[in-house]
Amino acid sequence: MKLSKRMQAMQSSPIRRLVPYADEARARGVKIYGLNVGQPDIETPSVFMDAIRNTEIKVLAYANSKGDPELIKATSDYYKRIGLPYEPEDIIITNGGSEALMWAFVAVADVGEEILVPEPFYTNYRSFSAPYSVTLKPITTYAENGFALPSEDEIVAKINDKTRAIALSNPGNPTGVVYTREEVELIAKIAKEHDLFIIADEVYREFAYEGLKATSFGEMTDVLDRVIIVDSVSKRFSACGARIGSLATKNKELPEQLLKLGQGRLCAPTLEMIGSTALYKLDPSYFDPIRQRYEERRDVLCDGLAAIDGVVCMKPMGAFYAIAKLPVKNAEDFAKWMLTDYTDNNETVMVAPVEDFYQTLGMGVDEVRVAYVLKVEDLKRAVEILDKALKVYPDRV
Amino acid sequence: MKLSKRMQAMQSSPIRRLVPYADEARARGVKIYGLNVGQPDIETPSVFMDAIRNTEIKVLAYANSKGDPELIKATSDYYKRIGLPYEPEDIIITNGGSEALMWAFVAVADVGEEILVPEPFYTNYRSFSAPYSVTLKPITTYAENGFALPSEDEIVAKINDKTRAIALSNPGNPTGVVYTREEVELIAKIAKEHDLFIIADEVYREFAYEGLKATSFGEMTDVLDRVIIVDSVSKRFSACGARIGSLATKNKELPEQLLKLGQGRLCAPTLEMIGSTALYKLDPSYFDPIRQRYEERRDVLCDGLAAIDGVVCMKPMGAFYAIAKLPVKNAEDFAKWMLTDYTDNNETVMVAPVEDFYQTLGMGVDEVRVAYVLKVEDLKRAVEILDKALKVYPDRV
Repeated sequence: MKLSKRMQAMQSSPIRRLVPYADEARARGVKIYGLNVGQPDIETPSVFMDAIRNTEIKVLAYANSKGDPELIKATSDYYKRIGLPYEPEDIIITNGGSEALMWAFVAVADVGEEILVPEPFYTNYRSFSAPYSVTLKPITTYAENGFALPSEDEIVAKINDKTRAIALSNPGNPTGVVYTREEVELIAKIAKEHDLFIIADEVYREFAYEGLKATSFGEMTDVLDRVIIVDSVSKRFSACGARIGSLATKNKELPEQLLKLGQGRLCAPTLEMIGSTALYKLDPSYFDPIRQRYEERRDVLCDGLAAIDGVVCMKPMGAFYAIAKLPVKNAEDFAKWMLTDYTDNNETVMVAPVEDFYQTLGMGVDEVRVAYVLKVEDLKRAVEILDKALKVYPDRV
Repeated sequence: MKLSKRMQAMQSSPIRRLVPYADEARARGVKIYGLNVGQPDIETPSVFMDAIRNTEIKVLAYANSKGDPELIKATSDYYKRIGLPYEPEDIIITNGGSEALMWAFVAVADVGEEILVPEPFYTNYRSFSAPYSVTLKPITTYAENGFALPSEDEIVAKINDKTRAIALSNPGNPTGVVYTREEVELIAKIAKEHDLFIIADEVYREFAYEGLKATSFGEMTDVLDRVIIVDSVSKRFSACGARIGSLATKNKELPEQLLKLGQGRLCAPTLEMIGSTALYKLDPSYFDPIRQRYEERRDVLCDGLAAIDGVVCMKPMGAFYAIAKLPVKNAEDFAKWMLTDYTDNNETVMVAPVEDFYQTLGMGVDEVRVAYVLKVEDLKRAVEILDKALKVYPDRV
């Protein structure tokens, strides 16, 4: 009586692997500044709960497997406001962006087939591919040049007859990279020439800074039949617990095929779809003060980290993550030590080691991901604590 | 640019395949009595919406990947009230029973491995196994003897070195069968002797009639390490749209392994978990009048159908489905004809053909599944319409 090999081979989330040590620290009365998870502290717009509270439900019935038609309409209207061509019939509502990614992976790849992903990548991409026995193949990108994509030749060299798609997040988690229009066009060109799908995880679309606008793959008009856009209300509207995402595509076959998966699991949660409809109806100006707040936080955190002796932190242009290279032998050991051995005035900091965000062994060993989802004074204090800690850390290099 | 073979090979839900014809009929002003889906008309207990309305949420954050601890506690308390030994640490909350079944399938089976399932079975079991390239192997059961399990020898003959589990629903969908304690013990014995898991879908647990109590696999004390119990609030509390289910097991490895899948998709929907906690705290007496109502409906529908010339409908002992053999060549053709060609006083009936609930080709061709989730007067009228329709149906045998 053995569990499946693919199940046993899956890794625990590195972001959450340190949680027991954090729990123990908290039990000792230590205050922890959590830079480790991308859980925004921004208030969920009140229209979300209002819409749910005002719903009269006698029988909480199954919703449409494609999603609540009003939410689909609101999502399509949102796309049109930002110049993307997705009609209601192009959109399926999913249990978070997570389910949308899982469906995209299994829709394009059979057992043992490959999906290219720039690394470091959101580690859960592994949880979305491994159960389907789909292989992720990394395209390594480097902190030194801002996690830009490598040359066309280097990307094409990774393609073989098992390659089915390129998946990428833009703006990127965990790097905060915002791909240039040229990079987006390069991926579109490669996908076209090598007959691949593009799985575009654009859940951080609104979070680009210094006036930059992230280029959507939905703007690549001559490859729209091979583009699958993944979205979510989680980060966009600070509604992570709603578990409402979506998948949009101009591919003619996909919506009907995906509906088979949709009908299998019946529907996304009814009430959270009602709340999410209200979110997608918000005026686009909703994002302005929030984007400004994240940008300010980014500056505080990245400038602060970069000023620490031995730390390298290039300022990312999007999402709300940054990767910092630390002057330590092993970032996971350091992250653990911060929870088990170090406090400053009974406070410490929790960071996410980046090693597991890479598929290639040996990459990212001295890197951590930090999320700037805390308020400015907390970020300043976190930087101060990290600075002091690195000064006394025994395994400093 | 092809979609995956496993995706294309999946079938649309037979229950939903007829929906376009129903939509057209409704557009012509025809009233349809829907016996085709298991969407109860019972009101969702008001505590569900009350609990959600009374929740003050500033930031709708990710919930625990294992599930909201209060819901887990309430689920464990529910199990203890009915004599099952599941502690909070044995339970994971899922996106409906659907996700629990998917996880169970992928947790026990690698690519190409097999899970035995008595047929006819809930067709979505296919949607839960096919994307993981897990094979379902049918154990055929027959309407003639009330869909009882075959002999030990017949079941064991289906087992080979790829077999990893036996999955079954009890009370059963689509048959309404309630397995005897001897049948449950037989499955437990076979699982033990052949080193298999038991995936026990017990979402209809409370719906057994004439004083019968469904035996849970959680009562099979000497095989508890190989039993995986799947549950859901959907049918139990008429809260299908909540998408809250659970998976419970005494296996020591499974909860930790499944948590990897749980962390991958982050969490189940927060608000719906809060509502579901209130549901699981309801007094067990909640089920008494509902069970009585379903039993009355069962009698009206099954007695009514059995009285129609040429129809065979054995009265099922559980769930809220029955299978009826019709005097027609092909039940799907008949079901479609009812929507496209037949009306009585501008009304018709929608039924679900059973053929696709069987894996074995050629089985169930003249059978339909009917759900008794409508009120008694509607069921009586539906029987009347079916009686009249069968008298004039051109492909009657």
